[in-house]
Amino acid sequence: MGGETRDVRTLWREGSTIRLIDQRILPHTFEITSLMDHRETAAAIKDMVMRGAGAIGVAAGYGMAQAALEAKDLPLDEFEVYFTAAAGRLRKTRPTAANLFHAIDRCLSAGKGASVNERVEAVVTEADAIAEEDLSASKKMGEYGSSLIGDGARVLTHCNAGALAFIDYGTALSPIRFAHNQGKKVHVYIDETRPRCQGARLTAWEMEQEGIPYSLIVDNAAGYFLRKGEVDLVIVGADRVAANGDVANKIGTYEKAVVAKENGIPFYVAAPRMTFDLKCENGDDVEIEERDHDEVRKMWGVDEKGNAVRVLISESEATVRNPAFDVTPSKYVTAFITEEGILEPPFKERIRRTFE
Amino acid sequence: MGGETRDVRTLWREGSTIRLIDQRILPHTFEITSLMDHRETAAAIKDMVMRGAGAIGVAAGYGMAQAALEAKDLPLDEFEVYFTAAAGRLRKTRPTAANLFHAIDRCLSAGKGASVNERVEAVVTEADAIAEEDLSASKKMGEYGSSLIGDGARVLTHCNAGALAFIDYGTALSPIRFAHNQGKKVHVYIDETRPRCQGARLTAWEMEQEGIPYSLIVDNAAGYFLRKGEVDLVIVGADRVAANGDVANKIGTYEKAVVAKENGIPFYVAAPRMTFDLKCENGDDVEIEERDHDEVRKMWGVDEKGNAVRVLISESEATVRNPAFDVTPSKYVTAFITEEGILEPPFKERIRRTFE
Repeated sequence: MGGETRDVRTLWREGSTIRLIDQRILPHTFEITSLMDHRETAAAIKDMVMRGAGAIGVAAGYGMAQAALEAKDLPLDEFEVYFTAAAGRLRKTRPTAANLFHAIDRCLSAGKGASVNERVEAVVTEADAIAEEDLSASKKMGEYGSSLIGDGARVLTHCNAGALAFIDYGTALSPIRFAHNQGKKVHVYIDETRPRCQGARLTAWEMEQEGIPYSLIVDNAAGYFLRKGEVDLVIVGADRVAANGDVANKIGTYEKAVVAKENGIPFYVAAPRMTFDLKCENGDDVEIEERDHDEVRKMWGVDEKGNAVRVLISESEATVRNPAFDVTPSKYVTAFITEEGILEPPFKERIRRTFE
Repeated sequence: MGGETRDVRTLWREGSTIRLIDQRILPHTFEITSLMDHRETAAAIKDMVMRGAGAIGVAAGYGMAQAALEAKDLPLDEFEVYFTAAAGRLRKTRPTAANLFHAIDRCLSAGKGASVNERVEAVVTEADAIAEEDLSASKKMGEYGSSLIGDGARVLTHCNAGALAFIDYGTALSPIRFAHNQGKKVHVYIDETRPRCQGARLTAWEMEQEGIPYSLIVDNAAGYFLRKGEVDLVIVGADRVAANGDVANKIGTYEKAVVAKENGIPFYVAAPRMTFDLKCENGDDVEIEERDHDEVRKMWGVDEKGNAVRVLISESEATVRNPAFDVTPSKYVTAFITEEGILEPPFKERIRRTFE
């Protein structure tokens, strides 16, 4: 993070405690909170105290480390029962992000068959490695991706795939940050990203921290600017990329991709290895989470006295459909920005060769 | 309007007073307010006490009637100065809806060259005629449009082009209301329509009043349902239709049209004669209103105690672009629903033949 919070990661581990920025109250309040055990971590993932594919994956890895540490004095068979149950609890928090499942699986395999002590150490080491890989991948995506951003470029992004969605830097915003640091003039159009407004709340906040010029727009306005020639490229993140290159990402991504293609504007998806799911053949196999109706009916904000309040914006009993993600078929994707470089079509082959 | 408010029009004239539903506070409070002179009417149009192409047109006509009545004791030359200035004031309220300019022009021409007394009577008669035509056109659009809605149809709509956007019935929602009254099973997907949420606040309220089943969705989710085959047709209204069939309508309409076409789903625009602007050759000639930044940064709602409050949802100083409308090129429009029937392509010819 830049600005006043330059040296803070989005989340980190201190022994068996996870410390993290509470993203539910940003940008109005910047607060570091603690998760004391894997149960609290699972609840925090579900309640979106932290969100974003990378941060969810790292939190799940840390949650597994917490579970291992909680069970370190049990005999091996009881350890395995406890540890497997913890994995199950963490798995059930959010269904869409591939990073979550990869992190849990990696920790489940770490030190398997060894003694409890060795197993605990291996799990903790693996969880820390996931966090370091996330950071390193973010930086590499920034370097590779910045080559796609020319001087004076106007970039549209959706949701928040920035530092707050990962340990730092992020995916979609990392190339923008690198381009800016290279001295290129960049302007970012930020979709506010209803219903939770991660664009308005988190991406706008990150751009303020970094001093990168931006315009906040309602999601409805993206098409207007794409059609008017005021956007040169689109970069978004991903929650899961299928083996064929279909992309599950924040609801609304699909609309932006279709309209970008219709207007001949390149549409890039920035995603690290952990987000690719080679076992998932195509996007329609991805489970799409439908979240609470009140996310649409009500809105968090700050009133004139500075108090955080939740207001009802629709009919109180309005019936709602609230899918949190959608699937963008690979034909709308110009290229993937990954830590291994830029992947262009044909995606199925390129993805398999790069990540298998 | 149905339900408890069945016999209320959106706005009407009582002598030189305009009475209307205050749409800024719906659905939380249903309140009838009064506009005492043409200056108050101009301010109310600008502040969106009423909105929607038809209601704006009728209000502008009534505003002209008020101005004529205010000046009825002046000599003819002074009457004309006062009346022309009032037209100028009303013209400057909102730039996009064609109905506004048509209504003002019709009132300016009414009784031109006659005595002040005759002129006043002609203007008032013309303003009342505009309101009656609006109502009659809405009903005819409902009848014609309902033929496009099959039993069991799922219809997506954007913004509010319903009874509240006109005198009653509306444009996009009128066919839905007619189909429902014919006993067809209809389900409506309502885009919430940021930034002012006319979908969440007004269309959802109208559907509740009429007892028509609906699902409120964030604007971002429309593409999800279009792609999943859960929408059979899209119907929207229009603020201005150019001679070639390009449609200026609420921001976000363009995205829905592109995504509907991409998925082979028919996209209908319901608009009366007053919304067609034959002098406007194509959509890119339409002036697009950019509105206040706080419309995006802040949100009106009702807190837990039932108080209406406005909360900040983004960075307080976030820079914003807030175009209120966009232009959908005619190639994305399947047909127009008008009071003269359903107009299919080629639009340029059909529109000229029907409305010239």
